[in-house]
Amino acid sequence: LPTKLPHTGTTIFTVMSALAAEHGAINLGQGFPDFEADPALLQAVTSAMAAGHNQYPPMTGVPALRQAVAAKLNDLYGSAYDADRDITITAGGTQGLITALHACVGAGDEVIIIEPAYDSYDPAIRLAGAVPVGVAMTPDYRIDWPAVRAAITPRTRALVINTPHNPSGRVATHDDLIELERIAEQHDLFVVSDEVYEHMVFDEAPHQSVARFAALRERSFLISSFGKTFHVTGWKVGFVAAPPALSAAFRRLHQYTVFTVHTPTQHAIAAYLADPAPWQGLSAFYQAKRDAFRAALSHTQLKLLPCEGTYFQTVDYRAVSDLPELDFAKWLTTEIGVAAIPLSVFYQRPQERGHVRFCFAKRDTTLAEAIRRLEKLA
Amino acid sequence: LPTKLPHTGTTIFTVMSALAAEHGAINLGQGFPDFEADPALLQAVTSAMAAGHNQYPPMTGVPALRQAVAAKLNDLYGSAYDADRDITITAGGTQGLITALHACVGAGDEVIIIEPAYDSYDPAIRLAGAVPVGVAMTPDYRIDWPAVRAAITPRTRALVINTPHNPSGRVATHDDLIELERIAEQHDLFVVSDEVYEHMVFDEAPHQSVARFAALRERSFLISSFGKTFHVTGWKVGFVAAPPALSAAFRRLHQYTVFTVHTPTQHAIAAYLADPAPWQGLSAFYQAKRDAFRAALSHTQLKLLPCEGTYFQTVDYRAVSDLPELDFAKWLTTEIGVAAIPLSVFYQRPQERGHVRFCFAKRDTTLAEAIRRLEKLA
Ligand SMILES: CSCCC(=O)C(=O)O
Ligand SMILES: CSCCC(=O)C(=O)O
Repeated sequence: LPTKLPHTGTTIFTVMSALAAEHGAINLGQGFPDFEADPALLQAVTSAMAAGHNQYPPMTGVPALRQAVAAKLNDLYGSAYDADRDITITAGGTQGLITALHACVGAGDEVIIIEPAYDSYDPAIRLAGAVPVGVAMTPDYRIDWPAVRAAITPRTRALVINTPHNPSGRVATHDDLIELERIAEQHDLFVVSDEVYEHMVFDEAPHQSVARFAALRERSFLISSFGKTFHVTGWKVGFVAAPPALSAAFRRLHQYTVFTVHTPTQHAIAAYLADPAPWQGLSAFYQAKRDAFRAALSHTQLKLLPCEGTYFQTVDYRAVSDLPELDFAKWLTTEIGVAAIPLSVFYQRPQERGHVRFCFAKRDTTLAEAIRRLEKLA
Repeated sequence: LPTKLPHTGTTIFTVMSALAAEHGAINLGQGFPDFEADPALLQAVTSAMAAGHNQYPPMTGVPALRQAVAAKLNDLYGSAYDADRDITITAGGTQGLITALHACVGAGDEVIIIEPAYDSYDPAIRLAGAVPVGVAMTPDYRIDWPAVRAAITPRTRALVINTPHNPSGRVATHDDLIELERIAEQHDLFVVSDEVYEHMVFDEAPHQSVARFAALRERSFLISSFGKTFHVTGWKVGFVAAPPALSAAFRRLHQYTVFTVHTPTQHAIAAYLADPAPWQGLSAFYQAKRDAFRAALSHTQLKLLPCEGTYFQTVDYRAVSDLPELDFAKWLTTEIGVAAIPLSVFYQRPQERGHVRFCFAKRDTTLAEAIRRLEKLA
């Protein structure tokens, strides 16, 4: 079969999870918790099913969930999203992202992505008929704004941003967003903002959502995921917030791509959002894991890079090995028994910086055993 | 925003459900049951959540579910689908359909759809870059094979088939499938086969799945939906079965469009499929509703068309009104208090046959009240 994605293989997450399973390695590759979700959330799904919420919800999502999302965003970021008009519930962040891109770009357009870039951006842009243009971050994983400006052409139509940033763990600053807003206005660009780690930001730094910046908000699709926030990555429910014209374009496509999302889960999350404690406490919860993981890794030859948000810790392994990143990640999995994700796969043109990513969304006992194995690299 | 779907508005199901809600009409429009699902199925989701099945499943779906699906198909249809290679779990039939089309057609291709055609086919084909070519069914809703043959050009690359057929309620015959197989082979076409009503076929007629026909199976994506079969349309879980090359192309796209589907629901359905009684009894369950609904409607001026499968009954209302179909459906909703779906919206070029569709997947009490209202048309 001819394919629209000739250069695309199996996602690295599937590859590394399979290798980890095959070799009995501790899977710090693909990002997902290995601990249980809040029983109250599971109970809420059971209650929603028992209450008969098992048929099609409205195409845009269950009203109570859209209202809870709009209220939370407006409260946190000073935005004024309307629950009926501006919020759409999606089958996870990935579906929100590809649909947003289809809504705003097409044949002949260029879309700037910041590399290392989450691996669905490139194929999502290509499937929309547009051309992804990668702009590498600086060596310490800041957005290289002069390089972004240099990459803009008359055909540039949108820019994908991601903060907190996967895989690097960096968090965009207020200045970054001001610069993004300026560039977007100056060149009349749409912004697709992947904020799925919005509630995992450390050391008291605020999450810089596009929703905080009035002019930016007007040209942005804000994408998030409840799976990340509530430790249920397999539930595949997220949302897109966007101003009226963008939401209308989004929904026109959404209705023919998935139409709606698991009804009882939507009701459950709506009820669960009534208590802000779970998401408000998330940064502190993961910061403690980050601190313990970093403290332990500091006794190895792996050099820690900054981790300001997300549940990912990137390390520089060049003191240990001169293998290319993918080979090192495989070696780490099969020989040391800890799976990681090479950052090199997140660039259009392979980059070898000697960096791999560990996921620390794991039980303390899992992390302790991973560290015991990684201490062989001392 | 420029859109890839310039001629596409809000789906008729959303429009009519909203109108029904606004006017307190009985909603026999959008197809969904108004009765409860089996408590054992709901309990299976609760059990799966409690067992910790809340993180990403494999991208292709939970192995136990893929195995159950392959075993059922192979047993029913004499196929030899491999659970690991040929079955992919989807976020409902709609997502399976659009992804299958993206996997097999692209710019410059033509795709034949049989009209009246379910309303997501046309936009799904356009989003894949191809051109939908509508071929109207005969006046009594049989596939018009000579017209299909006449519509084939050197650019025709695929054909979308749907049996049991929504909206007409017709079921394709063995001869239909033989002719489909012949045409597909002769013109080297892919077939996207929407079989979401596979377990609702009446009067002892067999469902003619593409999987029964060896040469056809090799060029077909077979699409189904657990939401229809198990009375949980809001759960949005289905599957695609296709031979290796087609499944590989499908999965390449699937991994970047939704990646995976609600994990606990997949486990629950896998467990629930161990008992064949629920789906084996479905045809008899709906046949009883069909028979009662038809008997009651036969006392009105609405003329009943054949209903061989699905949970839809189409009627000819020309003895009652000479309104166009959309206007009649709205009038029926607001003035008589029963919502229906006009068939005219399922054609590229508006056709007015004086036909609307009722959904009879409703409690007997709901159907009785609908009939009481429709008896005004006596
Ligand atoms: C959809 S599987 C990938 C999970 C993830 O977001 C990550 O590991 O970066
Ligand atoms: C996705 S809403 C439409 C439900 C349905 O399949 C129908 O009513 O035909």
